[in-house]
Amino acid sequence: MTLAVVTDVAWGDVAVESALCAAAGIDVRLVGSHDERTLAAAVPDADAIMTCFAPVTRAVIEAAPNLRVVARLGVGLDNIDVAVATARGIPVTRVTDYCVDEVATHALAMALALWRRLPGYDAATRQGAWGILPALPVRRLAGSRVAVLGRGAIGREVGRRWQALGVTVTDSVAGADVVMVHLPLDPTTANSVDDRVFDAVRPGALVVNCGRGGLLDLDAALTALDDGRLAGLGLDVYPTEPIPPGHPLLARDDVILSPHVAFYSEGSLLELRERATRSVIDELTKVRDG
Amino acid sequence: MTLAVVTDVAWGDVAVESALCAAAGIDVRLVGSHDERTLAAAVPDADAIMTCFAPVTRAVIEAAPNLRVVARLGVGLDNIDVAVATARGIPVTRVTDYCVDEVATHALAMALALWRRLPGYDAATRQGAWGILPALPVRRLAGSRVAVLGRGAIGREVGRRWQALGVTVTDSVAGADVVMVHLPLDPTTANSVDDRVFDAVRPGALVVNCGRGGLLDLDAALTALDDGRLAGLGLDVYPTEPIPPGHPLLARDDVILSPHVAFYSEGSLLELRERATRSVIDELTKVRDG
Repeated sequence: MTLAVVTDVAWGDVAVESALCAAAGIDVRLVGSHDERTLAAAVPDADAIMTCFAPVTRAVIEAAPNLRVVARLGVGLDNIDVAVATARGIPVTRVTDYCVDEVATHALAMALALWRRLPGYDAATRQGAWGILPALPVRRLAGSRVAVLGRGAIGREVGRRWQALGVTVTDSVAGADVVMVHLPLDPTTANSVDDRVFDAVRPGALVVNCGRGGLLDLDAALTALDDGRLAGLGLDVYPTEPIPPGHPLLARDDVILSPHVAFYSEGSLLELRERATRSVIDELTKVRDG
Repeated sequence: MTLAVVTDVAWGDVAVESALCAAAGIDVRLVGSHDERTLAAAVPDADAIMTCFAPVTRAVIEAAPNLRVVARLGVGLDNIDVAVATARGIPVTRVTDYCVDEVATHALAMALALWRRLPGYDAATRQGAWGILPALPVRRLAGSRVAVLGRGAIGREVGRRWQALGVTVTDSVAGADVVMVHLPLDPTTANSVDDRVFDAVRPGALVVNCGRGGLLDLDAALTALDDGRLAGLGLDVYPTEPIPPGHPLLARDDVILSPHVAFYSEGSLLELRERATRSVIDELTKVRDG
């Protein structure tokens, strides 16, 4: 029997993946771990490895002598050692564009909520405060500038949407009112949203990161919130996920947090699972039939 | 001396109004009350009445024999007895269009935040929950339908922005995923967002009211949240403002609340105050110079 090992999933089961693979004579086994040794021990008979967030390292790939495909259940490849796979001639697949609508909407929702001070106003209203004074000053959107970092499919869609709201969209952070982070994570972009960005923006600017946690220097961002260079931070992704308990982010009221879910809708999730599984089936049956 | 009595303001002082009026020889006096008897007692020598949210009733107008203009510091005229003023030949001014950008942004921010389940995800993240499961299912925006009720300047702008997000914009609530309320409040629209609407929308729809509190049947909306016809409610306005302490809204996590501030930005507020004051100066100096 051909075997696809799934390291981890964000949605609890592998029912969709198993149903599709069964029709192609492929077994699916879910490990449910991010631990390198656990994963390495799970893949000696794997023909395919499918991963959501778990790192597929050199050690994991080398532990799978029969490996013929690595599939990312997602867009980014930063958790897969693509170089090691490629050196062995193993294709690495991913699913692009399945969640452009979702991430663009999520990032825009965070930015607009911060812009209109909804967290502060919501809390004030519940506590009996009333009127425009409970929250920080709100700026007029017309005439403002939004820097979109990253011009992949998501960054382009985010820029297009902001333009429809009548703001100036730029790729320069100098004087920007909002910075939207949609870069891929690689050695050239890691920690690139740092003090150079927070020093360059308009005082009181907002930063939204729905890309990868490693893009943002989070400690520097917290300092920038404290000293007023930033007035709000929207985060779907973090340097360490899940966020460790007691992290200083969790007690702040000038941030909006979500648990790495910007990609998610009922529709996007089904599309992701089906397309990722199809890519595995295509590779495994190509080899078998070839 | 010519006198303009200001019933109430949402911004704490009448410095802008007084500075403009002083140059035209007009005194400005702030009452700071919504009480009919207090206001009636304050206007016997008033040439102008300016009001933000306080009702300017028949009794208030009749208590001001010298009255030559009533000015609304805002868009809607529902808190002014326009018929009584008009019968006496007293013009009623208002400031339209000064906050189209602000209200459209505020309403869209509430709707997108509810769509992406940001309140639930933010709370879950702070409590240590992780992943897509802590919140209600999130639907894909593409293919959804948004009903915009009211096609004044704000409703049209809201519809234009939703269209830029790729959804179908309609004025029918039948099967709608989101209902945006931007109607004027008058006897034909009062309480018109009621069970007929909540029964007609797609189960789990969202309703956002940044128009007037009297447009929405709030008790019916709370019931519709409880029985699943609605999944979220975004409110900037309420039947009674401020919201009374202990109101059932204040303890719900499927609502986003703000304290009647959708109109507000630093820019819109200055524009409102200047334009409303100019309308008073224009009327009073027209009569005086005429």
